[in-house]
Amino acid sequence: MAEQLRERVDTALREFLTPALSPLRDIGEELSTVADALAQFVLSGGKRLRPAFCYWAARAAGHEDSDALVRAAASLELLQGSALVHDDVIDHSDTRRGRPAVHRRFADLHRAAGWSGEAEDFGTAAAILIGDLLLSWSDAMLASSGIDDAALGRSRPISDLMRLELMAGQYLDIVEQASNGDTVDGALRVARFKAAKYTIERPMHLGAALSGSSPDVFTAFTGFGLPVGEAFQLRDDLLGVFGDPAVTGKPAGDDLRHGKRTVLVALALERADAADQQTLRRLVGRPDLSDDDVGRLRHIVVHSGVAAIVETMISDRVQAALSALEAVALDQAGRDALVELATAATQRSD
Amino acid sequence: MAEQLRERVDTALREFLTPALSPLRDIGEELSTVADALAQFVLSGGKRLRPAFCYWAARAAGHEDSDALVRAAASLELLQGSALVHDDVIDHSDTRRGRPAVHRRFADLHRAAGWSGEAEDFGTAAAILIGDLLLSWSDAMLASSGIDDAALGRSRPISDLMRLELMAGQYLDIVEQASNGDTVDGALRVARFKAAKYTIERPMHLGAALSGSSPDVFTAFTGFGLPVGEAFQLRDDLLGVFGDPAVTGKPAGDDLRHGKRTVLVALALERADAADQQTLRRLVGRPDLSDDDVGRLRHIVVHSGVAAIVETMISDRVQAALSALEAVALDQAGRDALVELATAATQRSD
Repeated sequence: MAEQLRERVDTALREFLTPALSPLRDIGEELSTVADALAQFVLSGGKRLRPAFCYWAARAAGHEDSDALVRAAASLELLQGSALVHDDVIDHSDTRRGRPAVHRRFADLHRAAGWSGEAEDFGTAAAILIGDLLLSWSDAMLASSGIDDAALGRSRPISDLMRLELMAGQYLDIVEQASNGDTVDGALRVARFKAAKYTIERPMHLGAALSGSSPDVFTAFTGFGLPVGEAFQLRDDLLGVFGDPAVTGKPAGDDLRHGKRTVLVALALERADAADQQTLRRLVGRPDLSDDDVGRLRHIVVHSGVAAIVETMISDRVQAALSALEAVALDQAGRDALVELATAATQRSD
Repeated sequence: MAEQLRERVDTALREFLTPALSPLRDIGEELSTVADALAQFVLSGGKRLRPAFCYWAARAAGHEDSDALVRAAASLELLQGSALVHDDVIDHSDTRRGRPAVHRRFADLHRAAGWSGEAEDFGTAAAILIGDLLLSWSDAMLASSGIDDAALGRSRPISDLMRLELMAGQYLDIVEQASNGDTVDGALRVARFKAAKYTIERPMHLGAALSGSSPDVFTAFTGFGLPVGEAFQLRDDLLGVFGDPAVTGKPAGDDLRHGKRTVLVALALERADAADQQTLRRLVGRPDLSDDDVGRLRHIVVHSGVAAIVETMISDRVQAALSALEAVALDQAGRDALVELATAATQRSD
């Protein structure tokens, strides 16, 4: 079921992008390079989590299956593409989905062409522009999805709020990072905006808006979406430290090298003994961490009991989410799919 | 007349931004800083050229005056705000409208707070996110302007194309820059996308779409808008070399320091004698140009006859534009305002 929706989302994205990219290709050869990079980036994977939560929330709220609904849900993937391309610039990330990040790809193009100026600056500029185009297209794809004007009108305020919360979450993230924020509360606040609201709650609200749902459905989706989103982010924190590079597509211990201010690290700083705290402060955020260093940090996270605590936080949240969903009458197939998605999102290994 | 529309555009922007910024302020104190920077940036000036061309094109095409039309036109200013904030990151520009560019402002905030990491990186990240929010809001403001669903539907394809062309023009610009493009054709192609289409033609097409105009109106607006837009850019080229810093809000000879690949510089390279060509190649693009160097380059541009040629190119284009507008029946007050705007945009000193 999940696999089938995923294919429909991919098809919708391909069918939107092909004509959308064509005027870009017409402008000139240089822009064909941009079009290729953009299409490859959007079409080469990703979990398609946001479209799935949006689609199944709509179905659970009584919306019938339609290609228009799939297209409306798939438009979230363009917003997410924009966020990832810009985020990779902001975080100086080299890779995304196991390939060079977009800004790296264009920096490489600059180098290969032997152009003048800084290759990195060129890469950053190209990635900013590509992210902008994806952001515009997420709106365009929703508007042209084939959902009716009334549904489009209802979806607007949710869609706007989602963009605002995404941007706010990213800003809070860079402030936490810059100010060396190391509290659990600070990290949870970032997780709430970047993951819980943007990844789960708002996509579900979009689905509810498309279905013309009553307020109690929105409330139930909040009660389900926020804890699932936090659990999703907590799983991400664990994978950022313990994940298998072959599965995640990111180097081992990537979050530790980038000094990402996660709930996991904040908890470790809170609970580790004095010597381990010192090690954490010394090593987290060093780009040149050796595999041994990563191993040492992993040991601290396990030894302090924090890995187990985070696992408990995840399962508590999933439990709370499932209860919240019981509070409202929903279509059974839709409800089952949402439960399945919540499990997959919080128990994944990639 | 122009002044009155400008005030209405500013009012529309203020009335959109105040409620739009409020959820941002609610999230936390950090985001209030973002909200303040964003409001100040959008509300502290700019020529409001795109809203003016859009509004008067609509009026010329028979649309009656309404606040909804002003709001729809004003939404272009948020798109432009996004483009400027991102462009200043791409060009490493320090100032905008006589004040620190947004990325500089946030780099300063980082330094003042004594945060860790690179202040410049923080500034870049904040500016990317603020530009993203402005880009989303330009769509939101158009959609909530109060124009009816049919007009909104007609405006969509124009609005999408405008965003694509803007992005394409900016990409062509960075490629020209990086590849040391120095042909007049290359520079004119960038001018066509970044200025002619994005600044004049498409805003006018948006006005025509809002009015439900016939194809011949779109054609006449292209015949008017493209040459006016090129002339606008050529005036910009001249101001980038000869402009008075007190009026332009930019340092003297700013384009020369930034090595901007303008039609003016391309023509000078084409027409100057061998010694002057060498001077041009040696000095243009050096960030540390002295006032004497700027003076020498100005002398070359005048002496080679290029300043006069560009003035002639401007007046030829304005002439062609005015003829194109005669080819179609338009409301007289709207037509007069468009002619006045074209003159102001191509004869300005800031």
